[in-house]
Amino acid sequence: MSQALEFTLQARCGETLARTGVLHLKHGTVHTPVFMPVGTHGSVKTMAPRELEELGAEIILGNTYHLYLRPGHTLIDSLGGLNRFMSWDRPILTDSGGFQVFSLGDLCTVHEDGVRFASHIDGSRHDFTPALSMEIQMALGSDIAMIFDECLEYPATREVTRRSMERSITWAERSKAAHGKADQALFGIVQGGFEADLRARSAAAMRHIGFDGYAIGGLSVGEGKDLMYRVLDDTVPHLPEDAPRYLMGVGLPIDLVEAVARGIDMFDCVMPTRHARTGYLFTGWGRINIKNARFRDDADPIDPACACYTCQNFSRAYLRHLFISGEILGHHLNTIHNLHHYLSLMAAIRRAIGEGRFGAFHREAAHQYHEETCHA
Amino acid sequence: MSQALEFTLQARCGETLARTGVLHLKHGTVHTPVFMPVGTHGSVKTMAPRELEELGAEIILGNTYHLYLRPGHTLIDSLGGLNRFMSWDRPILTDSGGFQVFSLGDLCTVHEDGVRFASHIDGSRHDFTPALSMEIQMALGSDIAMIFDECLEYPATREVTRRSMERSITWAERSKAAHGKADQALFGIVQGGFEADLRARSAAAMRHIGFDGYAIGGLSVGEGKDLMYRVLDDTVPHLPEDAPRYLMGVGLPIDLVEAVARGIDMFDCVMPTRHARTGYLFTGWGRINIKNARFRDDADPIDPACACYTCQNFSRAYLRHLFISGEILGHHLNTIHNLHHYLSLMAAIRRAIGEGRFGAFHREAAHQYHEETCHA
Repeated sequence: MSQALEFTLQARCGETLARTGVLHLKHGTVHTPVFMPVGTHGSVKTMAPRELEELGAEIILGNTYHLYLRPGHTLIDSLGGLNRFMSWDRPILTDSGGFQVFSLGDLCTVHEDGVRFASHIDGSRHDFTPALSMEIQMALGSDIAMIFDECLEYPATREVTRRSMERSITWAERSKAAHGKADQALFGIVQGGFEADLRARSAAAMRHIGFDGYAIGGLSVGEGKDLMYRVLDDTVPHLPEDAPRYLMGVGLPIDLVEAVARGIDMFDCVMPTRHARTGYLFTGWGRINIKNARFRDDADPIDPACACYTCQNFSRAYLRHLFISGEILGHHLNTIHNLHHYLSLMAAIRRAIGEGRFGAFHREAAHQYHEETCHA
Repeated sequence: MSQALEFTLQARCGETLARTGVLHLKHGTVHTPVFMPVGTHGSVKTMAPRELEELGAEIILGNTYHLYLRPGHTLIDSLGGLNRFMSWDRPILTDSGGFQVFSLGDLCTVHEDGVRFASHIDGSRHDFTPALSMEIQMALGSDIAMIFDECLEYPATREVTRRSMERSITWAERSKAAHGKADQALFGIVQGGFEADLRARSAAAMRHIGFDGYAIGGLSVGEGKDLMYRVLDDTVPHLPEDAPRYLMGVGLPIDLVEAVARGIDMFDCVMPTRHARTGYLFTGWGRINIKNARFRDDADPIDPACACYTCQNFSRAYLRHLFISGEILGHHLNTIHNLHHYLSLMAAIRRAIGEGRFGAFHREAAHQYHEETCHA
């Protein structure tokens, strides 16, 4: 453990690998298992910082790729760092930019030292390397930085997966060597696709290099739930018990419950915020599409059991009207609801673990999800 | 006075026609002079009701034309009225739809009984009449309804202006006859273009019909400030002293001060909200354009003297970044600032009148505006 991060395990579930913990970071304390709302361009879309705090968000994610391109990390640095820039005084985790370089950059070419790509904004040419990713993340001043790794397209052959995983280990070493910020934690990322032995090899290499926490990358790429859960089963036992484990880019509420049961502590996903802006809203019985004509005169809230500001004040009919009229307020109220759904799920998970009933909670969630999908 | 509205004058300025008052309406109390934020589609764009309350908005405006077309007044009625639909429990004034019929409706033709037009949304054909406008506004359940009048294009000849003004008197009579909601106030609208005698004739006719309040329409159509102020000078003396006076669709901050000095009590304008979404922000020394490159690394708030949430937390550099990145949060934070600027100006005006120093306040505002425009 560095001085940038202190992780204390608290309760454990007797039936699963679920655990609660407290993560102390530069900007404050985070209770795990935790969901991190995604703030791509220096804002969690439509949400003012005070609203995120009201929802109980303890840590958010910032995107290195986007902030590097616009407004630029040196500008943010000169204005006092990302926290001050966006007026968020709780912890931030920044990704390495790797995923966006591969998925958003045009004409992207991978070489031994990094990735060349053209900006999706103006076509300008850039060369991302582990050292540059560290330089950007240190300038942003996040609480947790991520190593720069290679992101593979799915599906990939075993041999391609193996070579990429080995390259990510090299880049992890270079990331750690280039990182020099005492108050910023650094997480490794385990790759290896859907091959148990490659995951084990990557995890061992990451532990050998030594990080403040360990992420699992390369999942939620279209592989299906069973395969994702199997990779978690295969990988988590190779990660240290006393460090936080972060499953990147996942997922649906059921995925969070299943991953917590497999020992994961941290999550991020654009799903609640992105779905909000396309009218997909989470409820206790699955997702609804607020655009649907059957909500035209529906006086009920999105979810009558929900305690969020949106559900306490607005009907489905009103939210449908806002959506169809293209009113920004609709995106905002939907985002409040979806983030509340995710953050209150995580709070319920933490309570269940703390009170020794997560096994039952997990079984019930799996059963309910099964019912949902059978009746969808 | 009907049971729907009670207006009590409080303080008067010794040097101008400015006055403060208290307006009691179905949904609560409004302190005048007052600015009403505009909520076109059943939301003041980007603003949740609790945020409007935080800014001190005591009454907002709803657009009859837009709500009639989408989602429809009968739907809103069946859901308990516009207040409940949008979860706003303070007063609402609805316009008559007239202005939008003329400015937004396609293929608009005026006939003796009303206006035929095609919806700007789907091209469907509609026929607005005084009776229909009353029916819609009663269904919406606003605190204050407006008569349906004819809106002229600017410029118009004296004869066209006169005929239109006479037709608006006929429609005012029909509006009053069709209006039958005891807890909803009804305001007349004085027309007559830029002809003092036509304004006097219209005002006398409106008084003769008898309304809870009197609006001045047909201004801020491109005529220039001096002409607008002259029409106010010509018109206000013909309005009853003890009823609220409402200047429709005006204007810039300086216009509000000048109109208050001429005896106006109520205002609405899309300028603060619309400007916010195009990056124009009001300050104590005029408007700034947040898109401007000189704000790229500017750590100051929009207006260092401003107490709004946006200015207390965010830099010009951040707001410029949000705007350029197309982030919805930028529109929202800009809207908070601009509405705060307008609403706190009105509060300052009320204090100045109440403390017997509005004469000086008015002279200083006029001087400052003169300086701004000379140095712009």
